[in-house]
Amino acid sequence: MPGDVIASIASLRARLDEVRGSGATVGFVPTLGALHAGHAKLIATARDECQSTTVSIFVNPLQFDREDDLRRYPRTLDADREFCRALGVDVIFAPSVEDIYPAPPACTVDVGHLADHLCGPFRPGHFQSIATIVTKLLGIVQPHRAYFGEKDFQQLTIVRRLVADLNIRTAIVAVPTVREADGLALSSRNRHLGPAERPLATALYRALHEADRLIRSGMTDVNQIKAAATVQIPVNPLLRLEYLDIVGPDDLQPVARVDGPVRVAGALWVGATRLIDNVESMRTT
Amino acid sequence: MPGDVIASIASLRARLDEVRGSGATVGFVPTLGALHAGHAKLIATARDECQSTTVSIFVNPLQFDREDDLRRYPRTLDADREFCRALGVDVIFAPSVEDIYPAPPACTVDVGHLADHLCGPFRPGHFQSIATIVTKLLGIVQPHRAYFGEKDFQQLTIVRRLVADLNIRTAIVAVPTVREADGLALSSRNRHLGPAERPLATALYRALHEADRLIRSGMTDVNQIKAAATVQIPVNPLLRLEYLDIVGPDDLQPVARVDGPVRVAGALWVGATRLIDNVESMRTT
Repeated sequence: MPGDVIASIASLRARLDEVRGSGATVGFVPTLGALHAGHAKLIATARDECQSTTVSIFVNPLQFDREDDLRRYPRTLDADREFCRALGVDVIFAPSVEDIYPAPPACTVDVGHLADHLCGPFRPGHFQSIATIVTKLLGIVQPHRAYFGEKDFQQLTIVRRLVADLNIRTAIVAVPTVREADGLALSSRNRHLGPAERPLATALYRALHEADRLIRSGMTDVNQIKAAATVQIPVNPLLRLEYLDIVGPDDLQPVARVDGPVRVAGALWVGATRLIDNVESMRTT
Repeated sequence: MPGDVIASIASLRARLDEVRGSGATVGFVPTLGALHAGHAKLIATARDECQSTTVSIFVNPLQFDREDDLRRYPRTLDADREFCRALGVDVIFAPSVEDIYPAPPACTVDVGHLADHLCGPFRPGHFQSIATIVTKLLGIVQPHRAYFGEKDFQQLTIVRRLVADLNIRTAIVAVPTVREADGLALSSRNRHLGPAERPLATALYRALHEADRLIRSGMTDVNQIKAAATVQIPVNPLLRLEYLDIVGPDDLQPVARVDGPVRVAGALWVGATRLIDNVESMRTT
């Protein structure tokens, strides 16, 4: 029945074979659970574009580079199931770690230079693990279309590239970031923010927004843009900017001067919580 | 029509969608061309087990670690096409390098410890390139079953593992090595052997065969087995043994003592030609 939770790979494949056999297109939204309005937008987009929607809920241990982040990551399966049902999700796939990794994988997806910048250097192995689990999930679900949020821009770019490089027959659809009224990008990690931290958390978006404004006003020197943007991050013992970088939108390599479309991305620690965000930008003058 | 050569990925997918849509199973034999009786056995096995057989012919430049090996690799597309047609192959897929690699891939398949021994250390990057092209071809062809020769045992083991690790929905079928009457394993590279070299080339199989005999007779010490086996390689300026190793059949890690099923594998240079071979073995006493 619609909204069923399926735990085994074999059962999921059997169910989706029926769906595909009936001629329906399969849309897929991979998640780590702890669903919020950002996921709702991914799901709504999938529902608009596909005749059947599958959501996976799997906290992939291999992509967590910090033990405490894995331990703290919110797990809310009952609420997530109701969330999916309310949004008309047809199939919820919630496999166990043992189903997905019966043994530590020997073969994994290397992402090459795409992990050299942005979050890559700060999260060793993270994007190789992301690329591997996404490849596995696309192999299991075999969707026509899969939906990824722009909030995780490095992940989105890597997924687009791995699907092209490995000839995986799924269209990757990017869905714009959903923000709170004050600009904070929705994230499952936002629920870790304490009352003193939450107002500070918007500083990252303000910095990215300022960088975008300067680029659109004609500033081209990256160091100058970064210096002016980071002024938006208040000096506060709770805040630590991990990086703010300006990269090419496809190759994720830092640019020295802004002379075409770029992505401005950053990571900000707010207390013990690490937040990321990004905006697209482009010189318009 | 049956036996057509299809060059584009889109045309191949359209053709095989029709085949699968009719309910037929798709068998797939990936090759580098220069087809011989070893390939004929792969094709015949696919034809026996599947309702439609696709053979790919693609000399993958990325898997050649030596420029001269890539340059010398035999290319015989007209003969290969006739060979396939005579064997009842339904679809021949012969893409261009540009089709397969419109850009150098950023995302590739890392094979971890599976490339640490046997041919791996002697051919840097080779198995990552093999794993990547096989993943790509399986993504393009989406076969029910794919056929690989035991002659390339490290490749076979890696392909089995990548399909499991990446949840690719293709059954991998191993096909036993085809040998000349004197034991030489069939290989496209055998045609490089000169008249003085061809009789020497059987030394590798004799050495592997001797190792197998000693293991089955109860010898367990790997160094002792290797020493006795390599005596089968004559001292000759045309011959150079690259390695002869005894490994676990699934993890490809060297064993110190033979106390279960093993694979005995080696690589022998005969003049400018590098040959590989392997046999399965097991203590029986």
